[in-house]
Amino acid sequence: MQNIKAYMKEVGQAARAASRFMAQADTNAKNRALENIATAILLNSARLIAENAKDVDAARQNGLDAASVDRLTLTDKTIKVMAEGLRQIAALPDPIGEISDMKYRPSGIQVGKMRVPLGVIGIIYESRPNVTADAAGLCLKSGNACILRGGSEAIHSNQAIAACVHQGLREAGLPETAVQVVNTTDRAAVGELITMKEYVDVIVPRGGKELIERVSSEARIPVIKHLHGVCHVYIDDEADIDKAIRIADNAKTHRYGVCNAMETLLVNANVAAQVLPRLCKIYLDKGVELRGDDTARKLVAQMKVATEEDWHTEYLAAILSIRVVADLDEALSHISTYGSQHTDSIVTENYSKAMRFLREVDSASVMVNASTRFADGFEYGLGAEIGISTDKIHARGPVGLEGLTSQKYIVLGSGQIRI
Amino acid sequence: MQNIKAYMKEVGQAARAASRFMAQADTNAKNRALENIATAILLNSARLIAENAKDVDAARQNGLDAASVDRLTLTDKTIKVMAEGLRQIAALPDPIGEISDMKYRPSGIQVGKMRVPLGVIGIIYESRPNVTADAAGLCLKSGNACILRGGSEAIHSNQAIAACVHQGLREAGLPETAVQVVNTTDRAAVGELITMKEYVDVIVPRGGKELIERVSSEARIPVIKHLHGVCHVYIDDEADIDKAIRIADNAKTHRYGVCNAMETLLVNANVAAQVLPRLCKIYLDKGVELRGDDTARKLVAQMKVATEEDWHTEYLAAILSIRVVADLDEALSHISTYGSQHTDSIVTENYSKAMRFLREVDSASVMVNASTRFADGFEYGLGAEIGISTDKIHARGPVGLEGLTSQKYIVLGSGQIRI
Repeated sequence: MQNIKAYMKEVGQAARAASRFMAQADTNAKNRALENIATAILLNSARLIAENAKDVDAARQNGLDAASVDRLTLTDKTIKVMAEGLRQIAALPDPIGEISDMKYRPSGIQVGKMRVPLGVIGIIYESRPNVTADAAGLCLKSGNACILRGGSEAIHSNQAIAACVHQGLREAGLPETAVQVVNTTDRAAVGELITMKEYVDVIVPRGGKELIERVSSEARIPVIKHLHGVCHVYIDDEADIDKAIRIADNAKTHRYGVCNAMETLLVNANVAAQVLPRLCKIYLDKGVELRGDDTARKLVAQMKVATEEDWHTEYLAAILSIRVVADLDEALSHISTYGSQHTDSIVTENYSKAMRFLREVDSASVMVNASTRFADGFEYGLGAEIGISTDKIHARGPVGLEGLTSQKYIVLGSGQIRI
Repeated sequence: MQNIKAYMKEVGQAARAASRFMAQADTNAKNRALENIATAILLNSARLIAENAKDVDAARQNGLDAASVDRLTLTDKTIKVMAEGLRQIAALPDPIGEISDMKYRPSGIQVGKMRVPLGVIGIIYESRPNVTADAAGLCLKSGNACILRGGSEAIHSNQAIAACVHQGLREAGLPETAVQVVNTTDRAAVGELITMKEYVDVIVPRGGKELIERVSSEARIPVIKHLHGVCHVYIDDEADIDKAIRIADNAKTHRYGVCNAMETLLVNANVAAQVLPRLCKIYLDKGVELRGDDTARKLVAQMKVATEEDWHTEYLAAILSIRVVADLDEALSHISTYGSQHTDSIVTENYSKAMRFLREVDSASVMVNASTRFADGFEYGLGAEIGISTDKIHARGPVGLEGLTSQKYIVLGSGQIRI
């Protein structure tokens, strides 16, 4: 424990020093590093796969479930995707140094803002080793240093990727300590990372709810986090029914295990008989389990009973809860009571109801006539995504490069003093 | 203790409910409430002064120092200023609902952001009762509900101001619970306020370092805070000497007890002999105690020795530490080592050095050829200020209405689904 403390302090100090260097690094050097890392990853793919095999073997021996083993496994294809992701980050505009809103004030000074890195970012994640490259790339481009703490089950894979990252940084003349991958599987390292206020400016936990809840309850540093995704689609009685069915189908069945998938469908009572039999046939054909309130169940025989628990649940699976509501007010009240402030969508052709929904739903993403599946950094044009925040402070919704930056005030004067 | 817990929970629930209402309140109703509160404060000034007298008497009996009693005391003039402040907030543009950056994406959806309130803001402050009106006004205008916890020494004054606030809200058709002033002096109330995650979205502590440190170390809710203000002016060897002397004089002596006052002056060795004797005469004439390094002391006989401790110190008094540095690099390194990331200014006519200073100094406000005293919400044109943040997350520097808001993503579609 004492050794972990000393080791993490060393890591923290090195990160803080590197962050000062990275904040000043020019765009060209950062992009060159990203390209170098991508090349190193491709050239070393055989070694990455060999190191990854150690993790995969151990995971199988430890009885890790198939889905987790799958997330852990690196293939030629996932390695190519990793390298491609880094090149995409290189192609994004550099957010650092951007000056905005410069305005003259009556005193004669000119005041505005300059975008700057946050400093040192601690990222705690689980089995996917590709997060090592993604997170390193995003932090690097945004001028931050980072400390990455991957899952213990991926330690060999992560260290092998780290070697490529360090090679890329070195070749671009940037400090290797700009990206440090914690080399111990001791959980005490996480405890240190999330409390080293002097060395770490923000923590981004990525993984299951348990990890995120633990990190955010114990952290003494601001956390950018994503908790639940209990997303809703509300089909209004003035909806275009074809659009409604297309959107509700897509929001649920495009992918089941993702945070922006719809978990509860709300249907206006006036169109429930028109919508539900047709829509539920699609769901049932795709093997989606349906759980509804009494009104919905009268329209679709195969629907099970939804309990109070269901309205709160993020299934992340082929299960959907369905509720028939009297009007927009009831839909808004349901979302406010049971939603997780992640992503909610209304389907309607009525202007006033669309505007009310946009204004009144207090979620990170609020949509009109679009699938909740669009709540994503790439779909929003951020170019990349470190995660989706369900917090209100700092970054809300998909977090791209800009979420890893801050703005300082700059003042240009010509000798002004306060009178 | 159990009673305080129950009381604060009740306050929290009422605030959460009010915050939903306030988020939808129209600009007109919010401005009317602000005007009403201003009027109520003016009409009730005799009662405010009578209630305040109880606090002032008690403070004197308890042996509170003169400066604190002064801060606590309400006069006709401070009451007028309070009312005027509320009217100024009414005159500011409403930040809520502002839509920006709407752009079409290749999928056909249009994505942008809408500005929304944070929700419930907890404000913890010390003796000045005018904060009750200021903070209530800022939270109200930004569509937030707030829970105010003033110093126990100002309890009668704060409750009297709260009565005016409630009257103003009521007359404008807004819920009185949008602004709640905690009516107990039990310190356990603070402990509850800063940990009630379900009911409070952000905490703003305003007061001395001790209060702020305690709040931020114990809070389980994000904190917008201001810690130290160890501000620097660096006089470069390519400075216009007249500007340099004017700025360095103003930055130190315009007001001593404020966070944006200069605490350490850095002077380039090439101009030290030109600058220091002339500038230090001004300081000494104004009664400023000077503490310098060896080089500086050779130039000004009356200067005491500055210790390592001095470079770290926010005097908030008529004391100044002075260091002669070899060049810009040494100045930057001093600021990075000893500064508090609040406000720092360079005086130079050299373009490249000005640009380097702007980019490399990692402070909330970075200035060229201007007094550090300009780091202020009013001077920056924010119209009002809830405080100055020395954090990097969310809000940096002077925090106005916008710092009490967040942005959610909005998506306008016409039936789009993810493919």
